[in-house]
Amino acid sequence: MQTMIDVRSDTVTQPTKAMREAMFSAVVGDDVYGDDPTVRDLETLGAALLGKEAALFVPTGHFGNQLALFTHCKHGDEVIVGDDSHIVWHEVGAAAVIAGVQLRTVESDKGVLDAAAVEKRIRVGDDIHYPNTGLICLENALSNGRVVPLAAMQAVWKVAQRHQVPVHLDGARVFNAAAHLGCNVKEITQYADSVMCCLSKGLAAPVGSLLAGSAAFIAQARKKRKLLGGGMRQVGVLAAPGILALNEMVKRLPEDHANAHYLAEQLSRLPGIAVEMDDVQINMVWFNLPPFLYGDVLMDALSEANIKANPPEAGRMRLVTHWQIDRAAIDRIVAVFAGLLK
Amino acid sequence: MQTMIDVRSDTVTQPTKAMREAMFSAVVGDDVYGDDPTVRDLETLGAALLGKEAALFVPTGHFGNQLALFTHCKHGDEVIVGDDSHIVWHEVGAAAVIAGVQLRTVESDKGVLDAAAVEKRIRVGDDIHYPNTGLICLENALSNGRVVPLAAMQAVWKVAQRHQVPVHLDGARVFNAAAHLGCNVKEITQYADSVMCCLSKGLAAPVGSLLAGSAAFIAQARKKRKLLGGGMRQVGVLAAPGILALNEMVKRLPEDHANAHYLAEQLSRLPGIAVEMDDVQINMVWFNLPPFLYGDVLMDALSEANIKANPPEAGRMRLVTHWQIDRAAIDRIVAVFAGLLK
Amino acid sequence: MQTMIDVRSDTVTQPTKAMREAMFSAVVGDDVYGDDPTVRDLETLGAALLGKEAALFVPTGHFGNQLALFTHCKHGDEVIVGDDSHIVWHEVGAAAVIAGVQLRTVESDKGVLDAAAVEKRIRVGDDIHYPNTGLICLENALSNGRVVPLAAMQAVWKVAQRHQVPVHLDGARVFNAAAHLGCNVKEITQYADSVMCCLSKGLAAPVGSLLAGSAAFIAQARKKRKLLGGGMRQVGVLAAPGILALNEMVKRLPEDHANAHYLAEQLSRLPGIAVEMDDVQINMVWFNLPPFLYGDVLMDALSEANIKANPPEAGRMRLVTHWQIDRAAIDRIVAVFAGLLK
Amino acid sequence: MQTMIDVRSDTVTQPTKAMREAMFSAVVGDDVYGDDPTVRDLETLGAALLGKEAALFVPTGHFGNQLALFTHCKHGDEVIVGDDSHIVWHEVGAAAVIAGVQLRTVESDKGVLDAAAVEKRIRVGDDIHYPNTGLICLENALSNGRVVPLAAMQAVWKVAQRHQVPVHLDGARVFNAAAHLGCNVKEITQYADSVMCCLSKGLAAPVGSLLAGSAAFIAQARKKRKLLGGGMRQVGVLAAPGILALNEMVKRLPEDHANAHYLAEQLSRLPGIAVEMDDVQINMVWFNLPPFLYGDVLMDALSEANIKANPPEAGRMRLVTHWQIDRAAIDRIVAVFAGLLK
Repeated sequence: MQTMIDVRSDTVTQPTKAMREAMFSAVVGDDVYGDDPTVRDLETLGAALLGKEAALFVPTGHFGNQLALFTHCKHGDEVIVGDDSHIVWHEVGAAAVIAGVQLRTVESDKGVLDAAAVEKRIRVGDDIHYPNTGLICLENALSNGRVVPLAAMQAVWKVAQRHQVPVHLDGARVFNAAAHLGCNVKEITQYADSVMCCLSKGLAAPVGSLLAGSAAFIAQARKKRKLLGGGMRQVGVLAAPGILALNEMVKRLPEDHANAHYLAEQLSRLPGIAVEMDDVQINMVWFNLPPFLYGDVLMDALSEANIKANPPEAGRMRLVTHWQIDRAAIDRIVAVFAGLLK
Repeated sequence: MQTMIDVRSDTVTQPTKAMREAMFSAVVGDDVYGDDPTVRDLETLGAALLGKEAALFVPTGHFGNQLALFTHCKHGDEVIVGDDSHIVWHEVGAAAVIAGVQLRTVESDKGVLDAAAVEKRIRVGDDIHYPNTGLICLENALSNGRVVPLAAMQAVWKVAQRHQVPVHLDGARVFNAAAHLGCNVKEITQYADSVMCCLSKGLAAPVGSLLAGSAAFIAQARKKRKLLGGGMRQVGVLAAPGILALNEMVKRLPEDHANAHYLAEQLSRLPGIAVEMDDVQINMVWFNLPPFLYGDVLMDALSEANIKANPPEAGRMRLVTHWQIDRAAIDRIVAVFAGLLK
Repeated sequence: MQTMIDVRSDTVTQPTKAMREAMFSAVVGDDVYGDDPTVRDLETLGAALLGKEAALFVPTGHFGNQLALFTHCKHGDEVIVGDDSHIVWHEVGAAAVIAGVQLRTVESDKGVLDAAAVEKRIRVGDDIHYPNTGLICLENALSNGRVVPLAAMQAVWKVAQRHQVPVHLDGARVFNAAAHLGCNVKEITQYADSVMCCLSKGLAAPVGSLLAGSAAFIAQARKKRKLLGGGMRQVGVLAAPGILALNEMVKRLPEDHANAHYLAEQLSRLPGIAVEMDDVQINMVWFNLPPFLYGDVLMDALSEANIKANPPEAGRMRLVTHWQIDRAAIDRIVAVFAGLLK
Repeated sequence: MQTMIDVRSDTVTQPTKAMREAMFSAVVGDDVYGDDPTVRDLETLGAALLGKEAALFVPTGHFGNQLALFTHCKHGDEVIVGDDSHIVWHEVGAAAVIAGVQLRTVESDKGVLDAAAVEKRIRVGDDIHYPNTGLICLENALSNGRVVPLAAMQAVWKVAQRHQVPVHLDGARVFNAAAHLGCNVKEITQYADSVMCCLSKGLAAPVGSLLAGSAAFIAQARKKRKLLGGGMRQVGVLAAPGILALNEMVKRLPEDHANAHYLAEQLSRLPGIAVEMDDVQINMVWFNLPPFLYGDVLMDALSEANIKANPPEAGRMRLVTHWQIDRAAIDRIVAVFAGLLK
């Protein structure tokens, strides 16, 4: 049988051999005591790369986002966020439970929030009917495969600055965004007070994310991380591959993007498959299947070829490239579709 | 000086003389012990009128809505609600604080939620990324002056039933809705598991609202009302005017609606004033001012005529009729506008 | 049948005739707009009497206490409180739901908290394992009938001041405490940043309490009262009897205390009844029944004499005096006990 | 310089060489998809050892405890817990934030809760003043070094069963408790519906704990773990050393206990040091320093000998043994004290 290909998401990435070696030999200590040199190194490195004063290791991206809400906001505040964001859709309603804040959605145009629409939602001042806007959340890149242009981020940032509302960036894939924009990641993160980025996903670390921001913000977040049960001990074993994620894996993201583009092109040549090429900006390919191709037939064929993919929903499907998906793997995937659509 | 006219809202209504007499002579007891016969009478009457098994007196409509969320939902659930609803806009973000639930908005077309859009938002089942949909909230009538047709309510109700999600109706002005629809209020409330209606506002009681639902729901709500600090003592002094609100004031709401219609018509004849007559369905008149009429000039003129109104926002203004506003009062109001616009 | 006597609690007090007249003729307005002159008068009067800058009308004492916690504390703070306090025992666990704070109890010696024990519980500073102490709560008088001496209050106050932790006083019956101590109520409230006092209970208003504190604290509390659903409309109908509660009923509390003392003495003369006379400090008489007097026999006999009392728990019983209980009523009560114990 | 000795806590334990090798070679997958075979193996093994149907990997013991509260309880419930417990003292007040529950403490006699005192605290039923008791929490072993006897656990369990209240065991060091009692750990965990045990601490895994309980409970907890941000990806890298923690490290705990006993004995022979030998039940030695030995002098001397210890508080000090502390290390520690006290 051929080797397994997994294009369900970039969350499935295996750690590299170098990462496993780094775990094996990591110098570790009790991080609740502040004694783990490797996690300190990772946090220093992450803060520097992201252009913030300080950073904090957290077990997941979801944890980092919710910790940001919990740290920026007062209980009862309102948070303005795009209606297609991860925080609204995929974080299990946590914002109301942990931070105790109300999400106020703004229509997102493929990840871009209209700055004027954001401004209209801001509620600060004395009206006793209104919660205070405690935070604006942006996301870049999005899990729809789109990247938000710098100008769009800047526009919201300016509104936020004018009303003295902080901005948090859900940057789970912010390095993918930077790779697409061809800019330093700091050009993106400059438009946010805090940013969360994942070391797993396309960067392949087995576990972990970073939350970065001002030194005062991170000091508060460190205590609230403990409150939420995220104060781990010899966490250098996770930080060591995290350092490689930042030092080694960031620079190869353009390869994943090029592979996604290649996959999109190959698929778009098949009869009945519609790919919006403009939306293939990072390592994700979204496309529509022809109605005559039944989902279960497709899934069976992929499975037979030892390819793991998430099933289509309402005729729409997503495939994701990452460091374990090369051109040969893509050709194998395309061959399955071609076989069914010939 | 002429008598004062207050058209800011129907929340400003003074209790009637009969209500004051009812307060004076109310038989009261300690309602935390269940000893107040007048509040029991009010709750029985309210439940019967609203077509529910039981009802509970609460200090405000906001309290009743939030108590409904707190009682229907589990901590961490999601609540589907119209994006123009009172719960989203005017309840200080309380849903995240008290019930600990995430609001998930659906675009409202003048209060009408598209049933298919509601259905798309429902999240029940095992996906660990998703909160469970614990409740759908409707509102009728709305504070934009519109009434939701019975068919639109029924359509959402059917979706809710299919997915076994309860429905709560914010019926702060549900008797206004019934008056406009020319139906028994039960024809509206049949499409909700619980309903909150205000005894103040157009019904003129000084303080209080009712939350109605099944006997089991109200028993739970009674304990949670205590948790929230709403377990009052000799509350029959408020229930007594509340009984008059239901028995005497409901039937005169058509008069308020007719007066609002009259006011709308008079205003629409003035140069530069645009009233969408289709939106004048209850006791509220929304209209646009001509750009050459400055808000502060208008407010000064109204004030001089001893008329209280909320100032226009972005050229848009709302006047509200109620039992203390008769045709003569309306003529006085219109005269001020006419004087400025002649 | 003889007139009914109700000694279950002072929460059962009926409003006086003067209070009913005050409700009848109260000048009222929409208090959410700040338009109700009577509630403003009450709040001004209450603040002055309690020695604070400002006060706020709230529907219940429980509401006032929880609003104080919610306003003083940050989400996640810890609150130090006596282990026999109303907040721990009788507020339905609300502190964790509304304010999201952890109660940390200190052993109470009949209401007196040892200042050193309080100090040991205070947690301020940087230890990431610890919540911050956001508030210390005192209670005076207690529902066990005891009054906390001024020196004991001052001792805790000094500790609180030293650590810059605010103090809230649950003064549901603070005027009873002042009556017992023979001092101005301000001599008590000086040892608290905020105080809640009930206008109902011994002061006989039908509904309502006051929360008093600094102007800034009350401004914040006003918004949070709205969030919790306590922003009522023509609430002057409740404020009017509240003004009489403060102006007329406070001064007659010594009569209730004298009556309680008289009741205690009469009971203590009966065979088998043990009254701790030192604990009869306000309007409450706690005593132990002899084991041979069965609770249901007693309750039947009281009921037959048209006397309402709460049944004994584990042989211990409480009777409460108030403005509707005179010496003749007490004699009727004692006669029932005497009849059973002769 | 001599090698470093760290007796601050057993949380400082380094992973063993075998653990590092296990991390290096772990077969991993995306655990949010349920694809990580190593974490599944760990969960199966943990459940079997702890005598429960299912288990769940969580990042920390604190996370596991709070997840248990969040899963067992309804928002607004009350939790009965010992007043010296980790949940009360060292979890940053999280119970009020996450689960939204009120902690109700029972006096602990060195970890033993009097079953009758627990029973008195249970509040179930209809009284609207009372929260419902949603959970009873036990802890075994305690961080004061004491183990709760089986009979004491059983007594509370019986009370809980009688009132149908679930029991959660904070078993961060439950394997230490079993080692001290000379019993199978299941003899302890039989008296709890759920149990949290740490793989770090004395068992030396770098990161992680298990929460075990019924299959239905763990299914709910899995979703709530996601809500709290604990749904990690290739977590097999942590599970692999966790398996060794259970398979290899549990059996050597008696050695740590014997070493603690040896350390206690050696210290107790020194002039001025008072060790309560009865309290040395696991791997912890608590003792009182003589007043003439100043804390900073001691800390300097330890530091000079390259020994890390937590400073004494109010003359009381704790040293903790673990797999990296052998007799030679203990002799080095005792020598420092002896040098100062000779």
